Amino acid sequence: MSENWQERLRPPRLERRYEFESYQALREFLDCAAEISEREGFYPDMGFGRDYVNITICANEGSQALADNQRRYAQLLDELYPPGAVA
Amino acid sequence: MSENWQERLRPPRLERRYEFESYQALREFLDCAAEISEREGFYPDMGFGRDYVNITICANEGSQALADNQRRYAQLLDELYPPGAVA
Repeated sequence: MSENWQERLRPPRLERRYEFESYQALREFLDCAAEISEREGFYPDMGFGRDYVNITICANEGSQALADNQRRYAQLLDELYPPGAVA
Repeated sequence: MSENWQERLRPPRLERRYEFESYQALREFLDCAAEISEREGFYPDMGFGRDYVNITICANEGSQALADNQRRYAQLLDELYPPGAVA
């Protein structure tokens, strides 16, 4: 998980913003993120517009800490970015 | 544009929440919305999780009112919902 994630409290959560040079690159990122969600069974809150995607990964309700699979999700997203960086 | 949109001020904007029975249906909705965005050249802010999509259509910066193409965008989204309702 890269240092670009901000860790916050109340509730415990990770937040990161990704920016994109084109809407097509953004859409491909969201498609890949959706595949990861289905594989991992985890669906974080995402917000997006034309050139950005904001991700919020919140600890499960009642939990005081993020779970291992939630941190792994953040890492998997990082591996998608920047678009085209991974062969 | 259906009455399910809430019109708000400061800034002038339309907001609506769509809910989905499956993640697949949600993804198809987002794909269709992306096609509309590219056709209309308009990219509203969207937020989503596993079973919901929130849309915010804001007036252009400096404008006191929503533009016709922004209201049309809301109507086009409504035509996608509920999934499977349109042949």
